[in-house]
Amino acid sequence: MTMRVLTLVNAMHITASVYINDDEPGILADYEEWLEGLAPHAPVSQYLHNRTGEDNADAHLKRQVMGREVVIAATNSRLDFGTWEQIFHGEFDGRRRKRVLVEIVGSNGDQSYPGRHGLWHTKATVTEPPQGP
Amino acid sequence: MTMRVLTLVNAMHITASVYINDDEPGILADYEEWLEGLAPHAPVSQYLHNRTGEDNADAHLKRQVMGREVVIAATNSRLDFGTWEQIFHGEFDGRRRKRVLVEIVGSNGDQSYPGRHGLWHTKATVTEPPQGP
Amino acid sequence: MTMRVLTLVNAMHITASVYINDDEPGILADYEEWLEGLAPHAPVSQYLHNRTGEDNADAHLKRQVMGREVVIAATNSRLDFGTWEQIFHGEFDGRRRKRVLVEIVGSNGDQSYPGRHGLWHTKATVTEPPQGP
Repeated sequence: MTMRVLTLVNAMHITASVYINDDEPGILADYEEWLEGLAPHAPVSQYLHNRTGEDNADAHLKRQVMGREVVIAATNSRLDFGTWEQIFHGEFDGRRRKRVLVEIVGSNGDQSYPGRHGLWHTKATVTEPPQGP
Repeated sequence: MTMRVLTLVNAMHITASVYINDDEPGILADYEEWLEGLAPHAPVSQYLHNRTGEDNADAHLKRQVMGREVVIAATNSRLDFGTWEQIFHGEFDGRRRKRVLVEIVGSNGDQSYPGRHGLWHTKATVTEPPQGP
Repeated sequence: MTMRVLTLVNAMHITASVYINDDEPGILADYEEWLEGLAPHAPVSQYLHNRTGEDNADAHLKRQVMGREVVIAATNSRLDFGTWEQIFHGEFDGRRRKRVLVEIVGSNGDQSYPGRHGLWHTKATVTEPPQGP
């Protein structure tokens, strides 16, 4: 029996991203520099959001470029990834401990016996140590 | 019994976005200014798309930065959001009345009795008043 | 009986995107020029990733702006699209043959007879000819 699912993985913080790309140190450093060019942290006074007393407006912008979530198909507990696809959690603020939500919806895929279908749903939250600045 | 779902919320227009971020007026104004820097509206002649007679090429670009859709887990009719997560509809053109599609797929999560699983699907479209200049 | 599904369409390569926008040649050319401005290909030495011997760091960045995947609701085998929504596969590197994953999860939506629900899942991978420079 083949188990087929969709997996949602999302950041639970609005200055963080979950994204899929290459697990290669150079490109990860390139992302940091590129994002800093698109949405510079300093001067912090350039952003209205920072009048609230925070200094992380740039992190809100960077997160939009990199995205909040990914949805991934999986077959028999194996993510249906291309050769180089890897999931990352990007944290652009670095203040608090961060959580990631993982939600799975799927079936046993036994299409001949609908009455025996086991639709299931699993949710997990993953807490990460803070990263950054 | 726990009801678990995935919720898709997407813009139905290609110059609009559905995204999740902070409901703070400063950051919303920061997004506008930042996007205008990344994809300026004027001069409208800088975009080939505007040769069609439209002047909204920049809105197509801005929408890609902010995204088309979000997928959100929910438990017992409550969105599984982090503390500050809020859904927004961003409209970068402002011409027509806009619609948003909301689709829900889920189960009652009673994993012990697969035969009694109630898979359900709900769709709604939400029409908003036009926003913008 | 109404068949309702969610459809996941994702790039399987980390220098490619699946996105939804307008099937208008001008805007497609505008995307290319705009992305080249946000993440220039040359000089290739500006990116650490290219020290690996590749020269496609810019393609990794462009793909993040345009996104990896889309999730689309569908009713009775028809995508629930707004008037101008069209799916695109964007390829920013152009080297290899590329694949796209299509995964569908849905039900027959007959909510009165949960035991007869036909949850189904379909996956397809689509191989495209290489595109690019």
